[in-house]
Amino acid sequence: MPDEESQCVKTEESLEIEKRGIMAEYFIGIDVGATNVKIGCFDGELKIVSKTSIITGAEMGPDIVIDNIAKAVKTLVTEAGLSMQDVCAVGLGAPGPAKYSEGLILSSTNMPKFKNVPIVRMLTDRLGKPVVFDNDANVACWGEFVAGAGKEVEDMVFFTLGTGIGGAIVNHGRLLTGCGDNATELGHIIIYPDGRRCNCGQRGCVEAYASANWTAQRATEAIEAGAESSLKKILQENGRITCKDVYEHLAEGDELAKKITDETAKALALVCINVLHTTEPSRIVFAGGMIAAGNILLDRIKHYFGEQIWTIKQETVEICFATLGEDAGIIGAAALAKHTTKQGGFD
Amino acid sequence: MPDEESQCVKTEESLEIEKRGIMAEYFIGIDVGATNVKIGCFDGELKIVSKTSIITGAEMGPDIVIDNIAKAVKTLVTEAGLSMQDVCAVGLGAPGPAKYSEGLILSSTNMPKFKNVPIVRMLTDRLGKPVVFDNDANVACWGEFVAGAGKEVEDMVFFTLGTGIGGAIVNHGRLLTGCGDNATELGHIIIYPDGRRCNCGQRGCVEAYASANWTAQRATEAIEAGAESSLKKILQENGRITCKDVYEHLAEGDELAKKITDETAKALALVCINVLHTTEPSRIVFAGGMIAAGNILLDRIKHYFGEQIWTIKQETVEICFATLGEDAGIIGAAALAKHTTKQGGFD
Repeated sequence: MPDEESQCVKTEESLEIEKRGIMAEYFIGIDVGATNVKIGCFDGELKIVSKTSIITGAEMGPDIVIDNIAKAVKTLVTEAGLSMQDVCAVGLGAPGPAKYSEGLILSSTNMPKFKNVPIVRMLTDRLGKPVVFDNDANVACWGEFVAGAGKEVEDMVFFTLGTGIGGAIVNHGRLLTGCGDNATELGHIIIYPDGRRCNCGQRGCVEAYASANWTAQRATEAIEAGAESSLKKILQENGRITCKDVYEHLAEGDELAKKITDETAKALALVCINVLHTTEPSRIVFAGGMIAAGNILLDRIKHYFGEQIWTIKQETVEICFATLGEDAGIIGAAALAKHTTKQGGFD
Repeated sequence: MPDEESQCVKTEESLEIEKRGIMAEYFIGIDVGATNVKIGCFDGELKIVSKTSIITGAEMGPDIVIDNIAKAVKTLVTEAGLSMQDVCAVGLGAPGPAKYSEGLILSSTNMPKFKNVPIVRMLTDRLGKPVVFDNDANVACWGEFVAGAGKEVEDMVFFTLGTGIGGAIVNHGRLLTGCGDNATELGHIIIYPDGRRCNCGQRGCVEAYASANWTAQRATEAIEAGAESSLKKILQENGRITCKDVYEHLAEGDELAKKITDETAKALALVCINVLHTTEPSRIVFAGGMIAAGNILLDRIKHYFGEQIWTIKQETVEICFATLGEDAGIIGAAALAKHTTKQGGFD
């Protein structure tokens, strides 16, 4: 775990703050989603001071969106009784494809006006603070690692089960990166070759079975193919089934919901085995809306993990759910800002 | 890539050597196999000075085996016109299960008398030199990384295709390890759930399809099930088919050999995709006896990789064969000894 002391470089500004007895030791965490942008202000111990959420409004284009984010940050800071002088650095999480190391959003499926947007420079210009930028899954993983389900371990693997499946890996206390900006795309590990066609173009990705969307899709297909289920009425009434519907009907004992959940759990167990044999984490953490299904899902993942894992060695990896909920992104982003500051990464 | 300058701590002994104008800057690499132990002596630039191979004789038990290794090292050094004073450190590779960090071989399928053997201490006692110990696949990978197929890159994934499939990962110039001593067991990534039963107890491991043994086994099963092939005669005459047989008949155009090779190549392509989405290497290197099959195999792996990989992003990872052959282990072990010395890992 990184040492968590901040080491801000002392500028004239910060020296003045120090004279007033206040260190610039607050950190901002920003979690950009297609619908909402969540923003949090954290103290030097990464305790939350205040948080807010604004509508992304991606259709207005990057200039206005980033203006709005900067304004919301300033308002949040002021309303917390602080000034921007008290802020040391900003952490930012957003979905790819992006060149995180260059601070650039390349494109975005859900934000079509965001093409080659130098979001780090644009935010730095508006806030006058250094900004560290990373993948949304990495940022949420880092949040769980420093303050949530992974805080006692040094090696964890993290999955977010949402529309798609995002992934991140902490190896010996560091977020694992590769030769580019696209390591740990764990949702696209192939578990069923020649299986379902994923949105990425591959067949048989774990995402194409076990994400919230695909879990709902499999239930829909089963009913359309004639399966009996209490979900049938939902499909007829609403025209669609959501993952939440599946878990609600699972809790009520619906057999199809049980079968669909079992398939999801088995797919997730398989990907757990594969990441275990790759980076050997001591903990595997699932996050995202789908974990609302609760222990029924977790127990089935563990069941299939136990059933499928090798027998030549007893594995002690712990499979669990995330604990920070929707705040993981802002906590992780702020923690990354603090960590980068400490490491001298902004110099 | 690690800086390759040695930084031996100067003892009275080494100061004396220095007076004579000779630095203790040679490194020994030892690659322990069930049948043979390969030993190499390398200069400070990791150029090979001399090498040898002895019969392991594992049935004689660890004491005698380790005595014999120590004797062979001393003979090798002497015959190279050096003395043990010229040797800075020793690197050792051996198959697991082992506690590498504790210098302990736990057990060995092919060396049944090796149970809880403190091989590092035993070798250190006999040679009077620090010994660094790692998994045989890690050591061979490190050899290819510093001096072979991976020497221009910082991020590579390595597979050895032998009896089983071993794996190792270099991430940002470091061998990837996990929370214990069992990371990068890449042969046990599951690619076909509910598929063939692997020796490890899992079903559908890549090893159970694409190792040399299993490739031969699949050919045997196909013939026994009635497939027509020029390999049939080999099976009748020899009572068995080897992987080498498969590739020889492939080169002669046998249709079954082509089908078997295609299945091997597809399995390897799938595992390439999965490791790409995990640690994002810029190069994936295959080693081991099976690469003697040559470009026919490599081309088919690349073909299936191209066919199965996602389309949302162009991948530039290079898939290639190892270049050091059987010397990878001793080169890698010596390189690891040098690297550990430089990092102060023996202090």
